This record gives sequence, structure tokens and C-alpha cells, in this order.
Amino acid sequence: MAKRLLSFTRLVQGVNVSAVTSTMVWEHVQPAAARRLLTGAVDAFAERGYQATTTRDIASRAGMSPAALYVHYPSKERLLFEISLYGHNAALEVLRSADRGAGAPERLRSMVSAFTAWHAEHHTIARVVQYELAALSPEHLTEVAVIRRAISAQIEQVLADGVAADEFAVSDLPGTTLAVLSLSIDVARWYTPHRGDPSTLGKLYADLAHRMVQA
Amino acid sequence: MAKRLLSFTRLVQGVNVSAVTSTMVWEHVQPAAARRLLTGAVDAFAERGYQATTTRDIASRAGMSPAALYVHYPSKERLLFEISLYGHNAALEVLRSADRGAGAPERLRSMVSAFTAWHAEHHTIARVVQYELAALSPEHLTEVAVIRRAISAQIEQVLADGVAADEFAVSDLPGTTLAVLSLSIDVARWYTPHRGDPSTLGKLYADLAHRMVQA
Repeated sequence: MAKRLLSFTRLVQGVNVSAVTSTMVWEHVQPAAARRLLTGAVDAFAERGYQATTTRDIASRAGMSPAALYVHYPSKERLLFEISLYGHNAALEVLRSADRGAGAPERLRSMVSAFTAWHAEHHTIARVVQYELAALSPEHLTEVAVIRRAISAQIEQVLADGVAADEFAVSDLPGTTLAVLSLSIDVARWYTPHRGDPSTLGKLYADLAHRMVQA
Repeated sequence: MAKRLLSFTRLVQGVNVSAVTSTMVWEHVQPAAARRLLTGAVDAFAERGYQATTTRDIASRAGMSPAALYVHYPSKERLLFEISLYGHNAALEVLRSADRGAGAPERLRSMVSAFTAWHAEHHTIARVVQYELAALSPEHLTEVAVIRRAISAQIEQVLADGVAADEFAVSDLPGTTLAVLSLSIDVARWYTPHRGDPSTLGKLYADLAHRMVQA
């Protein structure tokens, strides 16, 4: 998965974030019909919610018959799982790639900036990923929970490193980790392009998150 | 509306936040059948999403026939609007009641603490209110948007007052206002009682929000 995401992650890190279209997000998915089904599923889940979406709706958005959908995905839940797996892995990869800098403040700022920009740019995927977790099967939820813990660990580690170096003062490490992540994730709920470009928002949030923890 | 919410708001401000049950939230709604329909609608919308919920589902949760529902509410959308109106007015009232203290830092801490605790305690209502906005009719959305702007104005004013008194340093006033609100609102997405009690969470978030803006 990390390999498949590499070109995507480079784009996110670069200046031209707005060039990452929803088609490019799924460009690693082959064949094209499977990719059209994933795109259709994201749009349908975001518009109507997972429960109100039928496999017929998704197939129709992809210009296919319901029967043709099952050639690629055994169920509607499997499509949600693929979207969830992709979204979580992409967000984790964005954090890991951005975990660089001389000290904890630089690393935190770089990660929050990239993570926030990702949630602005991919707000439709992020909403489906965050709001439809309860619709995953228990086995699939367990798989996704592993990635969610890795995402938290990424932020918790930099906060702990900053505390150890007397650069950060944090009274509640798990609670503050959750707050830092939550601030960026909630961007997906309210973001629309007229709110400004993702990278400017990322810089503001990097500053706010740094101030939340600095010694 | 402010009058109807008064007893509720007092409870939220007090120590016994966990005593506010979902039945008590709707206690101002009469007759009891209308109240049962609202409670049923909140639970159904939260579980399955607005689009996947039928008036039959809601009536059945309230122990009523679908026809009996229409005696109280003309449509499923009207139920969503009542929930949305209640949720937004309650959140605004929580902020206004908490806007007290000697200076901007005390006022901000008091408001963020109460607003966060409300979103933890009423996470089910808050999720429906925040995630189903797009399902409101244009006229109803316009009404709700007025309350949303009043909620933002409440935080923006205390930040502006703090800047004027050299207590806060804020580079982007609308962006920081949105971030402070967003931090508390996203609590509704991830909160479950095992994450700690709402008032402890409120105190942590008051501290984090204050650090985000202090000079």
C-alpha cells in the first residue's frame, strides 16, 4: 500500500495540492471499471449515506449493471472497506512522509500542515471514512483500527519527544494527541474550496497545534 | 426558545452533566407522543442516516403507526428541522450562558469548556445536527444558518476582545474562530463515555483553546 501511495503522497506534499483530483486518487486501482465503481461509491455514500445507497446506485454512477459490480466487489460493504482502507492508509502515509525536521516543533508543524491539507483536499473521502466506520464488518473494522492506532501513535510520539526535550508542555498526552488529530480531521466536515486553499489552512493549523503544546 | 432551554442549560453548567438524559433534552416537547417521535428520529438518523430512515422506522420506534406520525409532523424533513433547530439553539444558549468572567481568557475558557461538554454529552444529537445539514430544505437551512452565525459570533467576539486587550495574539480571526469551534464540535464524532467524563474533557479543551490564542 505504501508503494501505491507514493506518487499521491508526493503530490500532497508539493505545492500543487489542488491538482489531486478524485480520479488521480484512485489511479492505482485496476481495471478502470473497478476504479469507476470506487469513485461512484464515494460520491453516493457522501451524498446519501452508506445505508441509503444501493449497489444499483453505485453501478449506475459507474455506467454499469448491478451484476457487473459483483465481478469486481462481492458486496457494498467491501467497497466501503476499500475506501476506508485507502483513506486511512493515505492519511497515515501523509503523516509519516511529513515527519521530518530538526526537532519536535518542526516535525509537529510539518505533520499537522500536511494532515490538515489532506483532509481539506479529500474532504469527501474523509467524510465517508470517518462517518461510516460503524457500517464496516467487525473484521474490517479491526483492520482499520490498526491503522487508526498507527495514526495516533505518529502524533503521540512527536508530542512525547517534544516533552522529553522540554520543547512541549503537555498535561494529558492521549487527550492532547486526540485533540490535535481531531482539529485536522474536522476540516473534512466543513471544508469547501471557498474557505481557502488547503495549504494555507494547513499552515494556520500547524501554528495552532504548535501553540496548543509549546512549553 | 431561550426560555424553554433554561432549565436544560442550568443542568449543563452544573456538575451533574451526566444526569441530562435524552428524555430530559426533549422534555419541553408536548405531547409525549411528539417527544417520542423526536427521540426515535434522533436515534434512527444517527444509526442509519437521514436518507435511509423512513417515517415508518421513526413511528415504529415511538410505538406508533406511520399515519399517527403525520398528526404531529408533516414530514421526515420537519423532524430533522426540529432536531437541528433544537441542537443549534441549545449549543448557542450553552455558549451565551457560559460567556462570563473578568476578562477574555476566563470567558473563552468558560465557553469552550461548556461547549465541549455539551458536544460530549449530546454526541448523538450533535452528530445528526452536524452531518445531516444538507438534508434540510433551503428555507430551513437558511433559518439554521442564522443560529450558526450567532454561534461563531460568540467566539469571534471574545477572541477580538482578547486581542484588543493584548491578552490574545490571533493572526487569522475567522480561521481561528472556526478552529476553536471545530475542536469542540468534533468531540461528537469520537466521544463515547469510556473516553472520560464531559466536564473533564471540557477543562482540557478550555486549556488547549486558550493556549491556541494566548499572547
